[in-house]
Amino acid sequence: MSDPLRTVKLVLAYDGTNYCGWQRQRSGQQTIQGMIEEKISIMTGCQVVLHGAGRTDAGVHALAMVAHFRTPSAIPCRGLVGGLNSLLPEDIRVLAATDEAPEFHARRSAAAKIYWYQFFFGDILLPTWRLYWARYRGKADYSAMEACLQLLVGEHDFSSFEATGSRDPAAARGAVRTIFYARLHRLEAPGMVRMEICGDGFLRHMVRNIAGTVAEVALAKRSIEDFHSILLAKDRSLAGPTAPARGLFLKEVKYHGP
Amino acid sequence: MSDPLRTVKLVLAYDGTNYCGWQRQRSGQQTIQGMIEEKISIMTGCQVVLHGAGRTDAGVHALAMVAHFRTPSAIPCRGLVGGLNSLLPEDIRVLAATDEAPEFHARRSAAAKIYWYQFFFGDILLPTWRLYWARYRGKADYSAMEACLQLLVGEHDFSSFEATGSRDPAAARGAVRTIFYARLHRLEAPGMVRMEICGDGFLRHMVRNIAGTVAEVALAKRSIEDFHSILLAKDRSLAGPTAPARGLFLKEVKYHGP
Repeated sequence: MSDPLRTVKLVLAYDGTNYCGWQRQRSGQQTIQGMIEEKISIMTGCQVVLHGAGRTDAGVHALAMVAHFRTPSAIPCRGLVGGLNSLLPEDIRVLAATDEAPEFHARRSAAAKIYWYQFFFGDILLPTWRLYWARYRGKADYSAMEACLQLLVGEHDFSSFEATGSRDPAAARGAVRTIFYARLHRLEAPGMVRMEICGDGFLRHMVRNIAGTVAEVALAKRSIEDFHSILLAKDRSLAGPTAPARGLFLKEVKYHGP
Repeated sequence: MSDPLRTVKLVLAYDGTNYCGWQRQRSGQQTIQGMIEEKISIMTGCQVVLHGAGRTDAGVHALAMVAHFRTPSAIPCRGLVGGLNSLLPEDIRVLAATDEAPEFHARRSAAAKIYWYQFFFGDILLPTWRLYWARYRGKADYSAMEACLQLLVGEHDFSSFEATGSRDPAAARGAVRTIFYARLHRLEAPGMVRMEICGDGFLRHMVRNIAGTVAEVALAKRSIEDFHSILLAKDRSLAGPTAPARGLFLKEVKYHGP
């Protein structure tokens, strides 16, 4: 008997400002996953579960989150994009929908994820940038930031940058992750700099904890050597504060493929 | 006797999304002018009236609005910037404060104003851009837009682009204004284009009415010749719809001076 359900992959962009993160909450708080599941259910007439490639926290944005769901509906992908965008609020957009093989899984099939963290170093952040940039007072040392990012590349145990108490200690992979690259882009305006980090997976709060610690090195509150020691120590209590959610974007999710 | 009051000039940036425009309202609705006047009064201990170089409508943004007030307070300008920014919400920022000669007047002394109008032509506007770009469906003809903008340059009676019923008919200058330049900037992403228009003054809704009509030419709903006839006709009923407030930015106010 053939599979009665299709597997549909969605590429999603959202402004996380007004949401309690990706993951559906029992409490009825507004979440990205909950909002999209509700609109898919309206369109298809069936309850669905939307599986995301990851879970962004409250206030975190996405430029191309990937998610999948399984449905008996025959609505073509083009119709799903148009229909969902007409039902969803403007701060969530479906950029694309495609049919995938039944074994496709947005999280398990993902080969890499790219995050951006947007820093503004200066006194006055323009109001039209305030929702998407994290402000730090002072002048940043960009080469020191770049040196920190180079230390992250490769396979490491990232326990020092993990949110405390967030992981099942029995998880097989532990806190070991591989960072493929991490680099800095300086933007048009003074003080605006974007960190781009690509890896095979990220622990909870890992990018924001790295960003918060890199910002301390940028502002000469810690040295590059301190940063290296923190990474090697596998001890969360040593790293800097978690950087604000507003600066973080899930930029892209990469899959193996033809 | 010397003037007991200082004249202070402020340069202001704001995100207009959550405000009922610049001008203080009797009804107690939240406005940019009202919000800043309240914070200046707290800092100086005196009621003030803040005179803006112009009045932006609800939802319109500013990158460098100029305003002035007169005060007996001796707080240095640097202290005013820091103090006001600590009291104001993040969607309004004071970029600079300077002492000016008593005859300085933010509106009357202004020599030119520059506005930006940000168009997005396409199906899906990224959520993180939605508050600052106006979306139009379809593919735009940028050279047709540029041709329209060239027709605006010089001294014209702009009655066709004025908000209906907005001007005191006895006003000496009437609807004649001079546009110094008007040009188009194409941005990094497909479909994103910014109109920049500089002139000695603008009628109410003038930039948005021009933008709405230029968008119709861009989408081949009207011809360049139609656009020219509308300008010459001095009749508001002919022009296109007022473009959305969210795409409009007061970019800069220019003053004569050394």
